[in-house]
Amino acid sequence: MARWKPNARERLERAALALFTERGFDATTVAEIADRAGLTKSTFFRHFADKREVLFGGQDMLVQLLSDAIRTAPAAATTAECLVAALESTAVAFTPERHDLAPQRRAVIAANSELQERELLKRFRFGSAMAEALRARGADEVTARLAAEVGVLAFGTAYARWAEPDNQAPFTEIANGALRELQASAAGLAGRTPSLR
Amino acid sequence: MARWKPNARERLERAALALFTERGFDATTVAEIADRAGLTKSTFFRHFADKREVLFGGQDMLVQLLSDAIRTAPAAATTAECLVAALESTAVAFTPERHDLAPQRRAVIAANSELQERELLKRFRFGSAMAEALRARGADEVTARLAAEVGVLAFGTAYARWAEPDNQAPFTEIANGALRELQASAAGLAGRTPSLR
Repeated sequence: MARWKPNARERLERAALALFTERGFDATTVAEIADRAGLTKSTFFRHFADKREVLFGGQDMLVQLLSDAIRTAPAAATTAECLVAALESTAVAFTPERHDLAPQRRAVIAANSELQERELLKRFRFGSAMAEALRARGADEVTARLAAEVGVLAFGTAYARWAEPDNQAPFTEIANGALRELQASAAGLAGRTPSLR
Repeated sequence: MARWKPNARERLERAALALFTERGFDATTVAEIADRAGLTKSTFFRHFADKREVLFGGQDMLVQLLSDAIRTAPAAATTAECLVAALESTAVAFTPERHDLAPQRRAVIAANSELQERELLKRFRFGSAMAEALRARGADEVTARLAAEVGVLAFGTAYARWAEPDNQAPFTEIANGALRELQASAAGLAGRTPSLR
């Protein structure tokens, strides 16, 4: 039975993304989203505080996942290993079933400067959460901030690559690849210390 | 003669920061700022588009300085040396005469969440400008982004340290110290590559 139960949240999300894509984010109303999904406005508001939350509603969960993964990593884990654990923990949000929504979501955000700002602030929250979790493990301030920025860059790069319509690779694999590239770049930046005045 | 010529822009800036500190940013009007400075509203608007620009007006100049310094660094300069040049170029904005304004500005921004968002977006602009300038020098995408984030972190750290009321060190010296610390952390992050899955 359960597998046939309509998933209201996902129907609303798909209806919203379709309308944002067709009409633009600003021109779409909650009533239109509910209507397109064959549901009521009050059902919409049981799932989302407003239409923006359709795009950013997963944020709190991602912050929690990133933070928890770092906090619960083995005591002997290096900072780099903590970042691996953090990014891997978010893979639950980037499943094959959600893959087709990602390009739409990215296009909607790219078309609206206010949403772009929201996206930047979301990434800032991810960075703050990771830095805080690294500090709680005893990382010094500079390392915590730098590693958190590397984590944010890796996450952003991985999400963008995963969201490519043709990319069928699992998020975890993409994220680990992005982290490795950033580590190699970090080595390059650090390796020239003598020439830094 | 010239040294006694009243500097309207600076008078407005000092009046605005004093009022923001006393009453809060939101509760302060342009009319009150002009009045406190002994100038007219129209003089205010010749210098600033709105009261927010008193806090963020230097942004375009800083973006230009950071970008130009990277673009005009010697061809043989390493990425790290480009960051040194970028941060050093901004020292013109952080002179001893402006030192007493910095703690006020920081406190006003810290007290207002909308201004904090502005500050984050400003730093994002700095990062984008540095990444773009590094790409123009031939840096690969990952290096350009990582180095730009290191530049932004170094800038933010240096500004916060320089803005400490008791810190009399020149901005350039503080900025180079912050960059060196970040390079050492980058080495630590990069150095554990074998343990990264």
